Amino acid sequence: MSPEPAPRLSVATVCLSGTLEDKLDAAATAGFDGVEIFAPDLIADPLSPAEIGDRCRALGLSVDLYQPLRDVDSTDPDRFAANLRRAEAGFDVMAGLGADTVLMCSSVAPDAVADTDRLAEQLHALAGRAGERGIRIAYEALAWGRHVDTWDASWDAVRTADHPALGLCLDSFHVLARGSDPGPIADVPGDKLFFVQLADARELSMDVLSWSRHHRLFPGQGGFDLPGFLAPVLAAGYSGPLSLEVFNDVFRQADPLRTAVDARRSLLALAEATALPVAPLGTAGTVHGNTATPPARTAPAGTRRGVGTDPVAVPPPELAGPAFVELHGGPELGPVLRGLGFSRTGVHRTKQVERYEQGGTRLLVNAAGDGPTAVAAIGVESADPGASARRASRLCAPPLPRTTGPGEADLAEIPAPDGTSMFFCRTADDGGAPVWSHDFVAVDEPPVPGAGITGIDHVGLTQPYDAFDEAVLFHRSVLGLDTIADGQFAAPFGLVRSRALADGARRVRLALTVSLLRRGEWSPAVADPQYVALATDDVLATAAAARAAGVPLLPIPANYHDDLAARLELPAATMARYREFGVLHERDADGDLLQVCTELLGGRLFLALVQRTGTHDGHGWADAPVRMAAHRRSRLAHQHRRVVEP
Amino acid sequence: MSPEPAPRLSVATVCLSGTLEDKLDAAATAGFDGVEIFAPDLIADPLSPAEIGDRCRALGLSVDLYQPLRDVDSTDPDRFAANLRRAEAGFDVMAGLGADTVLMCSSVAPDAVADTDRLAEQLHALAGRAGERGIRIAYEALAWGRHVDTWDASWDAVRTADHPALGLCLDSFHVLARGSDPGPIADVPGDKLFFVQLADARELSMDVLSWSRHHRLFPGQGGFDLPGFLAPVLAAGYSGPLSLEVFNDVFRQADPLRTAVDARRSLLALAEATALPVAPLGTAGTVHGNTATPPARTAPAGTRRGVGTDPVAVPPPELAGPAFVELHGGPELGPVLRGLGFSRTGVHRTKQVERYEQGGTRLLVNAAGDGPTAVAAIGVESADPGASARRASRLCAPPLPRTTGPGEADLAEIPAPDGTSMFFCRTADDGGAPVWSHDFVAVDEPPVPGAGITGIDHVGLTQPYDAFDEAVLFHRSVLGLDTIADGQFAAPFGLVRSRALADGARRVRLALTVSLLRRGEWSPAVADPQYVALATDDVLATAAAARAAGVPLLPIPANYHDDLAARLELPAATMARYREFGVLHERDADGDLLQVCTELLGGRLFLALVQRTGTHDGHGWADAPVRMAAHRRSRLAHQHRRVVEP
Repeated sequence: MSPEPAPRLSVATVCLSGTLEDKLDAAATAGFDGVEIFAPDLIADPLSPAEIGDRCRALGLSVDLYQPLRDVDSTDPDRFAANLRRAEAGFDVMAGLGADTVLMCSSVAPDAVADTDRLAEQLHALAGRAGERGIRIAYEALAWGRHVDTWDASWDAVRTADHPALGLCLDSFHVLARGSDPGPIADVPGDKLFFVQLADARELSMDVLSWSRHHRLFPGQGGFDLPGFLAPVLAAGYSGPLSLEVFNDVFRQADPLRTAVDARRSLLALAEATALPVAPLGTAGTVHGNTATPPARTAPAGTRRGVGTDPVAVPPPELAGPAFVELHGGPELGPVLRGLGFSRTGVHRTKQVERYEQGGTRLLVNAAGDGPTAVAAIGVESADPGASARRASRLCAPPLPRTTGPGEADLAEIPAPDGTSMFFCRTADDGGAPVWSHDFVAVDEPPVPGAGITGIDHVGLTQPYDAFDEAVLFHRSVLGLDTIADGQFAAPFGLVRSRALADGARRVRLALTVSLLRRGEWSPAVADPQYVALATDDVLATAAAARAAGVPLLPIPANYHDDLAARLELPAATMARYREFGVLHERDADGDLLQVCTELLGGRLFLALVQRTGTHDGHGWADAPVRMAAHRRSRLAHQHRRVVEP
Repeated sequence: MSPEPAPRLSVATVCLSGTLEDKLDAAATAGFDGVEIFAPDLIADPLSPAEIGDRCRALGLSVDLYQPLRDVDSTDPDRFAANLRRAEAGFDVMAGLGADTVLMCSSVAPDAVADTDRLAEQLHALAGRAGERGIRIAYEALAWGRHVDTWDASWDAVRTADHPALGLCLDSFHVLARGSDPGPIADVPGDKLFFVQLADARELSMDVLSWSRHHRLFPGQGGFDLPGFLAPVLAAGYSGPLSLEVFNDVFRQADPLRTAVDARRSLLALAEATALPVAPLGTAGTVHGNTATPPARTAPAGTRRGVGTDPVAVPPPELAGPAFVELHGGPELGPVLRGLGFSRTGVHRTKQVERYEQGGTRLLVNAAGDGPTAVAAIGVESADPGASARRASRLCAPPLPRTTGPGEADLAEIPAPDGTSMFFCRTADDGGAPVWSHDFVAVDEPPVPGAGITGIDHVGLTQPYDAFDEAVLFHRSVLGLDTIADGQFAAPFGLVRSRALADGARRVRLALTVSLLRRGEWSPAVADPQYVALATDDVLATAAAARAAGVPLLPIPANYHDDLAARLELPAATMARYREFGVLHERDADGDLLQVCTELLGGRLFLALVQRTGTHDGHGWADAPVRMAAHRRSRLAHQHRRVVEP
């Protein structure tokens, strides 16, 4: 890789919630180099442009772009003259801010100029005014522009206008949402690429304006090929900032610091994918990467940034599957795990943690502290846990401070956006650094007979409302997983978004869900359910063993099985067993997914037994509404029992 | 009008949140006659179909429809045979439920039959099976059906199949969203119209499937012409239930009883608009129309319904403008109102309420009880307050119980969905029933000089998240207002939906807003702001008088006025005055809207001075983000002052 300088990383104030002050503080604290300032943010601010510019500089931020000039060109000469005066007022603001580049959007107005030569003439006139003041016009084609709605149409106009103060602004959303080929961007002279804005999106079937204004995402959170967009941009010789312009309904009202950290992570991961060098943050900047409670919003100015061009690009960990799943919970979990065929094989030397094993499947039970029964952590096997943790730090996800006893494995604990911890660890003892399993002292206890569990199939985690897209990016970038399913289903108490991530070999699977709308006061559902899906090759046998050992299995309504019998035409004997154990059965072209769930263990956690046939790649979402209604019912029944029984 | 029987009113379980039990209870309590049962609701329920049928009957509900059969026809004979077996399983369920009509959707599957004759043949075969069991197939064209996607295509197939157990299901959404003309429905034989589903929607620019699945509304909440749809349906001779099938993301997770009451109100208002008779509820059913706290969900079975066909159709009140706006608040409001030129002219005989007047503009201040300073009520002039209140009761919005002293006006107090009360009242004393203003005893106090207030321009009310669409229907139906604006704007802390309602003469205007997404934990904005916009013909003079009298006016940033000066090219002298008093100025083709706001009076209420020129019909939403940022700033400054000053 050539020793080219690291690109500057910028974020538009439109990406972040709050007043301009909130946004600048968040951008600086997250470690951005610069910002795009959106005019309405400035207009609502009591500081003058010069004071805002001073504030940015004090925070270590450059003002890389002021935006936008709208609807400047006009078929009406008087209106065009008025528009030029309006633009000059914008230049005055920029002089105060100390910004030298302004975004001009292609016009959406009825009087927009259609003729390229006439448009170029007006652009030339505008650029002339700008150039006299040392300002550059970055012209951008909105995907819904009246006449100029593709990047090559904007390039036609800019090329024809031929003014040194006029260049292009390229926005990945406008290019990719239209299905335009970014390849030919490589042929644009690099000095005509004034600015590049980056945004991702999920494939949604809606008009492009609504899609753009409400549902943009940070790179890596959606399905756009951002590396494929950036490559020709860089090949053309673009050397300006990589800047995020993401209009998103959730980010607009979420904590701006969390969003800013998420945003910066997206650029670091994109730079990695594009083999760009990036300047790392100093330690102070990384401390509050994605902790559950963000720090006070005071930027530790000056001390924040590191130096050099140390690349992120340590490869993501080779995932050899989950080393363990750690549950937080009390002694009530023991009998359930034993009933599922797990033997208690060890207790931690210094922590209140017990280890249960069945074959190579390991569950830990952490009884320290209060809090509900829940998934506390997932341990993933990494060939080099230390390198994986350093990589996470560079992706704004530093390990939590952690007390390690003498001789214990130094596990890196990375908090995911939902508060669950991810551990990078090694289980096999090859004579290197201490392995985590040695931190446990064997217990002298007879093993219980196994029940056929062969591994962790996946872990299901309901996400905090604001953290869903952040979580997708976190797991993609820090763990190196890919999105393998993206959908939604109608649950009894509202719609639920679902997204599954896994490695290519399907060793590590996460099933993330979130309410489509934030829950309100009427929320009788189980709040934020979580589960661990345990793999078995014979779900009926495993369920039978579990029930015999007293594990409370979730009853499934007869109506479900009646419907299933009609849909799949299964033998009566099979159906009888399904009814007995509450089997949920999904079938698609690739195979079958059979599930049996336990009742809730505490307020939100359950375990599932999962059998896959063929190459079925699902996570039980077709049957989730039935399961959710059943869990709510059993929870109500238990509450009722608690009330009526002494 | 002919003495035809009132139509039965039904609601689909898909409209409501919760388990099937929650939904049936809500539908019964709201007074529906019947339900459509959505198969997935039944499948997730532990009661057998027969038990569900019994439960419906115990609640006084008929099962008017079971739905849906999907993807029945097939170009593959084996698959069609399997689909028929699947349909038979559905018929078994219906036998248990005691339902005789099933909805069949046009197929969306790749193997759907395109040829009308072949499709008709398969429909005939299915209807034959159904007919043998006393079941009717109501065939519906989904707007996104593979081949059959318009109502007339579905009618072609039904007519060609020509089987007595086969008829049409018409869904207003599918007809109106495609822009189909419902007029020719009048020519379909009435006995072939098996079922009619009603749904409204706002005009949204998105694919019809997403629009249908997420954004349907109850009739009267959107922009579809439901009376224009229903008229030809009735002209054809349809006499079955009027049933609601509304897929809506918010309703899916809101309190089902509130939604059910809202739903029933929509049908009553539609029946009124279509001049249909409707059976009223008995008193027990109306008590908990739309109180802020819905009652326990136990249905008072049997006693719920009244008898007869007493129509709703008392016309909505003739609105002669607001009689008063009542603020809840303490003595701190007095100086502000006096500063705005209002004189204290009376105190209520028996309640802790003071009356302030300026010309014909009346504000009441209610100091009873705790709670924040807020808009407590709006009094609207009605020629016959009693009739208006009875009409509201019939629209599931009964008056609150209220203590009236001897000789006092018997005001009907109707709570709106946001908890604000609406009073129907008379101010002019024409010798009839007591007028409300006589309940006040004059105070012996010198009047303050007026400040130019000429009336109540409008009242701005932030709605509870779940109540926005409900509020629109409430104000349209109960007050007889119309939607005059519908939009959204980007506020500093997230997107805001806005909707204005008014009478034709613009005497009564309400500006409703709600966060596009429910607010989360990071909510530094002023929570649920409310305001009363006071009309003036000279906002600068009124603001000058107010400031001279010590009213705290909201400062507006210089950046806003710099931008305004550039946009509107206003004279420097005008701009100087604007800056002095914090004038916000919006201009459109119809005229100008000038506003000056007070700082917050308490936690959420402010007053605005509003001057309109020309026929400007707006509500200040373009400038709302600037105002919101300013209010947050002044609130923080006050909090800070409170902390740092003794």
